[in-house]
Amino acid sequence: MKLKLFVDRLSQPCRAILIFCKLNGIEFEEVTIDFCKRENLSPEYQKINPMQLVPAIEVDGEFKLFESHAILRFLACAFPGVADHWYPADLFERAQIDSVLDWHHSNLRHGTTGLVFNSTVGPLLAGLPPNLEAAAEARKVLLASLPMVESFWLKGDGHFLLGRSQPSIADLILVCEIMQLEVLDEKVRKQILDPYKKIGKWIDDTRNATQPYFDEFHAVLFRAKEKLIKIRSTGSSDETKIK
Amino acid sequence: MKLKLFVDRLSQPCRAILIFCKLNGIEFEEVTIDFCKRENLSPEYQKINPMQLVPAIEVDGEFKLFESHAILRFLACAFPGVADHWYPADLFERAQIDSVLDWHHSNLRHGTTGLVFNSTVGPLLAGLPPNLEAAAEARKVLLASLPMVESFWLKGDGHFLLGRSQPSIADLILVCEIMQLEVLDEKVRKQILDPYKKIGKWIDDTRNATQPYFDEFHAVLFRAKEKLIKIRSTGSSDETKIK
Repeated sequence: MKLKLFVDRLSQPCRAILIFCKLNGIEFEEVTIDFCKRENLSPEYQKINPMQLVPAIEVDGEFKLFESHAILRFLACAFPGVADHWYPADLFERAQIDSVLDWHHSNLRHGTTGLVFNSTVGPLLAGLPPNLEAAAEARKVLLASLPMVESFWLKGDGHFLLGRSQPSIADLILVCEIMQLEVLDEKVRKQILDPYKKIGKWIDDTRNATQPYFDEFHAVLFRAKEKLIKIRSTGSSDETKIK
Repeated sequence: MKLKLFVDRLSQPCRAILIFCKLNGIEFEEVTIDFCKRENLSPEYQKINPMQLVPAIEVDGEFKLFESHAILRFLACAFPGVADHWYPADLFERAQIDSVLDWHHSNLRHGTTGLVFNSTVGPLLAGLPPNLEAAAEARKVLLASLPMVESFWLKGDGHFLLGRSQPSIADLILVCEIMQLEVLDEKVRKQILDPYKKIGKWIDDTRNATQPYFDEFHAVLFRAKEKLIKIRSTGSSDETKIK
């Protein structure tokens, strides 16, 4: 199957899909849809994904799919050679991973993306007006989600979600989500994440289990972080007011 | 397999699961967790679902699962005799249904649930303080989601989502979601839904394809609607101000 990935490496679910494909030997053509240049709004891209978001995929020039969880489930099942631990064939194990992924949408994803986009990426990188009210609401959702990751999803002695000994697509999606907080003001980021020691260890474990691709695809995020540090040092940012 | 469903029929994803089980001959024990009486917050229920939400399931007294989409995927695959159209074995068809379900979380679900809960069910049925700001934000998300259902998901000549000739678990989940708008003030509900003729026909088609269970499990919603009409006729409601 000939696979095209429509992605922006600054987007956390895009990075999860890129890392997954590399780890599992799935060949692909990477087509960059630059979100900051609003390429996602072009009529050409709308034919790939009418919702105007990244990521999306195209298979054999015909089959189109969007929504990152749906894409990862599909890739794990449709391409040969993907190790079973990513999305197990066992229906009970698979259902639990689906449960994490479905929970993610309205909780960790809603919180992180809302906070980062409305406070930082939108206003400082994409020239959009800041929405501090939406950022503050999202921060509340994030602060309610992190204790659930720490105390419930990271249960038992396993290194990964659901107490598993090897990572699943849920680890990849949720860790890439939390990594997005790197672009926040460092004081704000530490204030949010420092109380959660198990989450810190799990991020390290997932990073180690997915090298060298984890660092390769997160390089753009750290470049954006450097750029934001410079922007903040020369101008004012309202990020620290979102508390 | 011995199946217990922990549900409140006033909740739209609970109704979808109940209808699905009845339609597919899946036997179950229904355990009511009354959301208005806050039974979802009890320590006993927290052992079933630590997120304190309905629905949840228990299989053979051991395996526990929450998140309605994960539950429906599991039931469709793990129980014998479920017709293939509900959640097809074909990976391409399945991926498209997953795409609708994943899209639903941050769009139609976020809009409908946020509007109905913050404006109506919370304050008028569960005695919680109204949150008109959250209701108005949710209404915006709903008003952006309905045109996507009408113009993209209901494509082609098929009677169901994705242009299919038979319903999938995505039809059941999304139609039950929209049915929840029945408890809004009738003028507000009509104002929101009347522009979407294809959505109206699709609701009728899904209802017809899932009878008699669709009406059986929605009876409680229409009883709540009657109760709310009486409450509104004797007191004041802020619902019509959410525009």
